[in-house]
Amino acid sequence: MSNTTEKPRILTGDTPTGSLHLGHYVGSIENRVAMQDEYDCYFILANVHALSTRAHEPAEVSADCISIVKDYIAAGIDPQRSTVFVQSEVPAIAELTWYFAMLLGYGRLMKNPTIKDEIRVKNLGENYSFGFLLYPVGQIADILTFTPQFVPVGEDQVPHIEMTREIARRFNQLYCGVDPQTPDEDYVEAGGVFPIPQAKAGRIARLTGIDGTHKMSKSLGNAIMLSDSPKEVTKKCNKIFTGRGTMDDPPVLEGNTVIEYLRAFHPDQAQVDQMVGSYENSEIGDGVLKKEAGRVINELLEPMRERCAATSDDDVRDILRDGTKRANELAERTLWEAKQAMDYDFFGRGLSID
Amino acid sequence: MSNTTEKPRILTGDTPTGSLHLGHYVGSIENRVAMQDEYDCYFILANVHALSTRAHEPAEVSADCISIVKDYIAAGIDPQRSTVFVQSEVPAIAELTWYFAMLLGYGRLMKNPTIKDEIRVKNLGENYSFGFLLYPVGQIADILTFTPQFVPVGEDQVPHIEMTREIARRFNQLYCGVDPQTPDEDYVEAGGVFPIPQAKAGRIARLTGIDGTHKMSKSLGNAIMLSDSPKEVTKKCNKIFTGRGTMDDPPVLEGNTVIEYLRAFHPDQAQVDQMVGSYENSEIGDGVLKKEAGRVINELLEPMRERCAATSDDDVRDILRDGTKRANELAERTLWEAKQAMDYDFFGRGLSID
Repeated sequence: MSNTTEKPRILTGDTPTGSLHLGHYVGSIENRVAMQDEYDCYFILANVHALSTRAHEPAEVSADCISIVKDYIAAGIDPQRSTVFVQSEVPAIAELTWYFAMLLGYGRLMKNPTIKDEIRVKNLGENYSFGFLLYPVGQIADILTFTPQFVPVGEDQVPHIEMTREIARRFNQLYCGVDPQTPDEDYVEAGGVFPIPQAKAGRIARLTGIDGTHKMSKSLGNAIMLSDSPKEVTKKCNKIFTGRGTMDDPPVLEGNTVIEYLRAFHPDQAQVDQMVGSYENSEIGDGVLKKEAGRVINELLEPMRERCAATSDDDVRDILRDGTKRANELAERTLWEAKQAMDYDFFGRGLSID
Repeated sequence: MSNTTEKPRILTGDTPTGSLHLGHYVGSIENRVAMQDEYDCYFILANVHALSTRAHEPAEVSADCISIVKDYIAAGIDPQRSTVFVQSEVPAIAELTWYFAMLLGYGRLMKNPTIKDEIRVKNLGENYSFGFLLYPVGQIADILTFTPQFVPVGEDQVPHIEMTREIARRFNQLYCGVDPQTPDEDYVEAGGVFPIPQAKAGRIARLTGIDGTHKMSKSLGNAIMLSDSPKEVTKKCNKIFTGRGTMDDPPVLEGNTVIEYLRAFHPDQAQVDQMVGSYENSEIGDGVLKKEAGRVINELLEPMRERCAATSDDDVRDILRDGTKRANELAERTLWEAKQAMDYDFFGRGLSID
């Protein structure tokens, strides 16, 4: 019903928090690049959600949107084929958020493990903004506005996709008269506005940082950024903590971050097998592995650096303008169908982006 | 800054719950009619909020929007001078709701006595939709989107206006650099996007129903509707409970609903004084007062009936279309100013209503 191209659609994206690193790359970006042929891809920059923790620095969030798009282009996302857009410039998302909020029990929302964990981990108590609670509700609209069949996400987001699926079913049942017994894949055929989207996990959910301990994260200072120079990459790879205290300690294989990187990024895994064997027998040391990791990561990043250098801020604005226009075409169509289903279709409207 | 006419602006409205009665009239509608000369009036039909309790019947809410506008026109609201519009057709409200949600502490929201009371009175426990919590947050945007100087409300809504004022101050301080020491009335002059609106209470906050006990309410069956026929009004006035069990009981003056109505609706209060004196001395009985109440109420409603009969559903749609267009002009301007202040002004946009 909402499908306008023949390829199945996916929706995914990022909450802008600065430039991207290798953890983002293997966790999602690489996957997105690969999906561009088979899927009609929509990538959202969730700059409104970003305010739930960064309300005091919206200008920085806006600047981060630009950096992320440069990294997207660098990594191989093709803005001709894929639609990259800014959340704040798609009003239908905010409007659908409100309608979906009516169908979501407060108790159900607070049972979402992602919310509970975040309140606990960040020790928030009741010291969070209402916008913090609005985040997962808004995410339902981020997704459903674009009526995707699939949502590529990390494992931690799966409970959230489950909530999205519940709301999609409820809307379709309540306002489109879809029978609750309908199989998930048949909701649109049965007259629903929203397909029941499926989560789709990436290749590697978690990449360890160069500290050899925590998940790679810019704020922990253990990240290799997609935009790092060759020298920076070499330097960072030399610093990877491999689990050995001194060179006299026996080689550690389990949880060795340099091996993790070779497994993740080396194009010739037979060669990695060989090196790991030599390492286990102490024929080669940490230094050789680190050098090889630096080499293959630089090989991966080199074409990205070239594409990034060739992309100006103005190019990014043009990409976002085009993407936001396309995103709004689909979003306005979805909103209109939802409002028709609800008898809330008072007046047609036209929306244009300058 | 956001003021485009010379008259100060007000924003008020109704959550559509069916036709209006005399309690609405004395509590707010009469006041609105009187304010049309001095103020630039915006009247919102909060049909999205209505879903927080009526998500299962959106078509009925849409029908109620039409009835209410007929009552507005009947009561003397002039759609040429005043802007009557539908909440769901103004996207900027939903978008600003999201930005304001970031500035509102969850703990602060839950301390709002209106929310607490409603959860208690309706015995909701945790059995409410997230949309129920979104209601007061959305109301902040209902108001601030139209940058009014005044908000005519009932007394029970005053704590809510206080929350709106807090968020307006916070936005202006955080994003427009307004000094927190600035007096409320100078925020816009100091560079703020939003004036700090003042609550403005109506003439009579509470009108008793014909049961002589509860506040007039359609759902309690004790209401005289603005659209009641002359016969219905006479019949209902005859049923008013005056506090006396039988005609042999002494006349009750304190809390006598028929006297309350004569005080509220009789154009000649000297005559009411005289009648009440005669009633106190038992020279006249309940029947005379009831008949007089019926007469003056019918006198008030007669021109309303004529205007209502002269207004078709198509007229109402035209009124709402015009009003919604005007509301969006102002709303889009406010949103753009807010986004400029936040560095979220990615792209200009045009919005048209068919």
